[in-house]
Amino acid sequence: MKTIHAGETGTVNKWEVFEVEAEGFSDKNPFLDYHIAGTFAGKGESVAVDGFYDGGGVYKVRFMPSFEGEYSYEIGGSFAQGIKSGSFTVAPPKEGVHGPVRAVNRHFAYADGTPFYPIGTTCYAWTHQPPEVQEQTIEELGKGYFNKIRFCVFPKSYVYNLREPQTYPYEGAPLDNWDFTRFDPGHFRRFEKRIGDLAELGIEADIIVMHPYDRWGFSNMGAENDDHYWKYIIARFAAFRNVWWSLANEFDFLQNKTTADWERYAKILCEKDPYNHLRSIHNALVFYDHTRKWVTHCSIQSPAVEKTAEWRDQYGKPAVFDEMVYEGNIDEGFGRLSAQELVRRFWECAVRGGYGGHGETYKHPEDIIWWSHGGRLHGESPERIRFLMNILYETPGFGLKQFRPNDGDFAGVFSCDETVANIPAPYMQPTSYLVFGCEGTVAIPEEPMAIGSYCLVYFGNARPSCFECRLDESAAYEVEVIDTWEMQIEKRGRMSGKMVIYLPGKEYMAIRIREQ
Amino acid sequence: MKTIHAGETGTVNKWEVFEVEAEGFSDKNPFLDYHIAGTFAGKGESVAVDGFYDGGGVYKVRFMPSFEGEYSYEIGGSFAQGIKSGSFTVAPPKEGVHGPVRAVNRHFAYADGTPFYPIGTTCYAWTHQPPEVQEQTIEELGKGYFNKIRFCVFPKSYVYNLREPQTYPYEGAPLDNWDFTRFDPGHFRRFEKRIGDLAELGIEADIIVMHPYDRWGFSNMGAENDDHYWKYIIARFAAFRNVWWSLANEFDFLQNKTTADWERYAKILCEKDPYNHLRSIHNALVFYDHTRKWVTHCSIQSPAVEKTAEWRDQYGKPAVFDEMVYEGNIDEGFGRLSAQELVRRFWECAVRGGYGGHGETYKHPEDIIWWSHGGRLHGESPERIRFLMNILYETPGFGLKQFRPNDGDFAGVFSCDETVANIPAPYMQPTSYLVFGCEGTVAIPEEPMAIGSYCLVYFGNARPSCFECRLDESAAYEVEVIDTWEMQIEKRGRMSGKMVIYLPGKEYMAIRIREQ
Repeated sequence: MKTIHAGETGTVNKWEVFEVEAEGFSDKNPFLDYHIAGTFAGKGESVAVDGFYDGGGVYKVRFMPSFEGEYSYEIGGSFAQGIKSGSFTVAPPKEGVHGPVRAVNRHFAYADGTPFYPIGTTCYAWTHQPPEVQEQTIEELGKGYFNKIRFCVFPKSYVYNLREPQTYPYEGAPLDNWDFTRFDPGHFRRFEKRIGDLAELGIEADIIVMHPYDRWGFSNMGAENDDHYWKYIIARFAAFRNVWWSLANEFDFLQNKTTADWERYAKILCEKDPYNHLRSIHNALVFYDHTRKWVTHCSIQSPAVEKTAEWRDQYGKPAVFDEMVYEGNIDEGFGRLSAQELVRRFWECAVRGGYGGHGETYKHPEDIIWWSHGGRLHGESPERIRFLMNILYETPGFGLKQFRPNDGDFAGVFSCDETVANIPAPYMQPTSYLVFGCEGTVAIPEEPMAIGSYCLVYFGNARPSCFECRLDESAAYEVEVIDTWEMQIEKRGRMSGKMVIYLPGKEYMAIRIREQ
Repeated sequence: MKTIHAGETGTVNKWEVFEVEAEGFSDKNPFLDYHIAGTFAGKGESVAVDGFYDGGGVYKVRFMPSFEGEYSYEIGGSFAQGIKSGSFTVAPPKEGVHGPVRAVNRHFAYADGTPFYPIGTTCYAWTHQPPEVQEQTIEELGKGYFNKIRFCVFPKSYVYNLREPQTYPYEGAPLDNWDFTRFDPGHFRRFEKRIGDLAELGIEADIIVMHPYDRWGFSNMGAENDDHYWKYIIARFAAFRNVWWSLANEFDFLQNKTTADWERYAKILCEKDPYNHLRSIHNALVFYDHTRKWVTHCSIQSPAVEKTAEWRDQYGKPAVFDEMVYEGNIDEGFGRLSAQELVRRFWECAVRGGYGGHGETYKHPEDIIWWSHGGRLHGESPERIRFLMNILYETPGFGLKQFRPNDGDFAGVFSCDETVANIPAPYMQPTSYLVFGCEGTVAIPEEPMAIGSYCLVYFGNARPSCFECRLDESAAYEVEVIDTWEMQIEKRGRMSGKMVIYLPGKEYMAIRIREQ
């Protein structure tokens, strides 16, 4: 973040936060009674944004430039007298920075066109933990297991997480003596420092704005206070390039909110966030209507990873399984999955053209559990998930037809465990065996498989002793056998035409075939 | 089977085959041009059945008595001149014989009311293999892994099974020079000997009457020959108490047959089978309309065992997953599942109130593969499946409300891997944790779980470190922890009230709680 005083000049990198601060009135209720706004204009864009009161008589306006070159700004409003203006320069983006993530063609890409394959985790209340736990979380996240994390602005009250948070979003005192018209800017400063830390690590911040795990009343503040809250966090957070808006976690458990409320919040978001960050709303029992235009992707809670392609195509949007049950050993049904099965679900999502989500819930003597608090990871899935992420980043690019099942006539990527209905055409006709197979030998379809230039086959709980296929004889393919659990890639050399790829008869194997 | 000559007297046990044979005309085409029928009457019943020509001038009529005591019979028809009559005595059933299986209350029971929990396997073409392979199959089946087996009357032509069968159902020669009006009685005698062998082992014979894996033309003989075939096998097989009629395997792959054909076959079956043996029709891609009255149970091909209760309740009939992909290591998607996953699916079916089906497809140097040929079993699932079967037989009985999820307000049996929607009420409300849990301790619902007298909880891929519940304090329960893979049952003693049952943090565990 680059901060200047209103009237000064400065330099900022493209897609970084450019912040202009100014002193203003601190009488009355500055959060409600005074207003600050700014306009930022360069060759490529002119953006008007609201600012916010940050306490101690200081007001701020934030902006994220999407172009390089010379910009000017104007800051005004009732917060002080007069209009302050200045200029600044936008330098090229820092290395490795690709801008905000967009939904494109049922997948994702950064603003500069680089494919983004979300591989997320969940630490709902990590920013509300003591500083040393937060530092541990940052350290673990720095190991590159994940490129997205879901977490809540409000503190969380739920099993294993019933301590009071470090700070609260409002002035007042627990349990329920709050002034919902006065924010505690310190709470938000600490929170947004973490958004910035994540940006530095290349991790998207999937911010959960509302949730039902509440004993302080933040889930039931009334429409006016809700809207005030929405505008405040948009003014504060939207300029961070890595922000994703998750309107709620388990929205259907928020019993005091109606569809009209969610639609109103979404409207505020669409009006006030000039960067059009990704927007989703996460279910417990029942999906929100993901066909709503403002919903950019399906944020799904379900273990039914076989439905990835179905839901993705039904809603015409990326399918992100943000919760598909967590690796762990707690008693609760959501937190006791084996690492093997969680990793399998990640792969099943991936080969069906969707994206999985991680969480970890191992019992801990001090109740520091990754899924809620962050801290340390203890499970076996994270490094396997990172291994998958690396393989996804080695695909020829998102949206490639042959990488996505059910996009066309033949998929090229499929999972072992589908019913025949989902298996590509060459496998559907028993006659292809009857005609071309013979007793004791391998049955190979007569026609080459139309795999295109890239094929990733995942076997999950299946453990065939071999995989038979027939590739174009005029091309050469590199064949690799991948042990997704042991994280080993064995090169099998170049092949073409009819081939039998022998496998070790273990679960969790995959085959990658790439045209040379 | 008890055989007498027409006019003689005899004795037979209840639910055994009583056969009356008689010489008759052998000119013209005895299969078509002559007819034999019989009536069998005792105090409890009077049954009219068709007989059949068995070659060499011999005609037969078969009957299965459902009552004990004195019976008389009359045999007549155009096959010979005059009517032959006689009497016979029906003795009590042999030990362990409970009669034919019926569908009752979405589950199964033998005619004498003993619950029957089908745990089936599949050896499509085992009766068409050389005698020594058939004997191996019988030997393996004698080990008590399964109590039902699916197999075909017609020979099978499909991958790994392209040798010619031992015999054919018709006079003629392969490939397609057959007289569909003349059966080879030897083929059927050998086949029904195996039905009898299975009955001796207490195994139900789920006979697949039609199937699409055909290179001889048996799947496309025309309506008249089809009907002739149906009447012939009903006359031959229906008197075996352990017969189940599977109209077809993968009926939707039989491209020359229409719904009208299937309904006509079903009509013949309902008219001609006086014992009302179970009737089903097995899908490949698309379910037959299981709401049809003549369908007694859903014979399902699908790996979607989570849908067990949904389908069972949708059709109001027992859900039998006759194919949910086989344990093995062949290349084909249907035959490469791990034993662990197959056993898991059996358990998931069971705790959801349905029934799984086994098949095994390991590569074999001579292509003798259980799923098609029978022979020897090589996998790890059969003994685990037998273990499950024994546990099912220790339940208090079918139809018990608390044993079946989704039957009422509270299930008592549930699986780890369901979405919250399917988890019984005490687990659905986050507030039950908020109110009654506290940091670092176990959250226990305030109200006792209404588990009734029996509760079986299966965790599948989940491996919680403990399971918390609260039982009625005025009753005493025996608690056992079951390792479904290692097949061990650990007694944890008697408990009541609030309890924490500690678990080893492994996959495939279950807990059984029984009121003392």
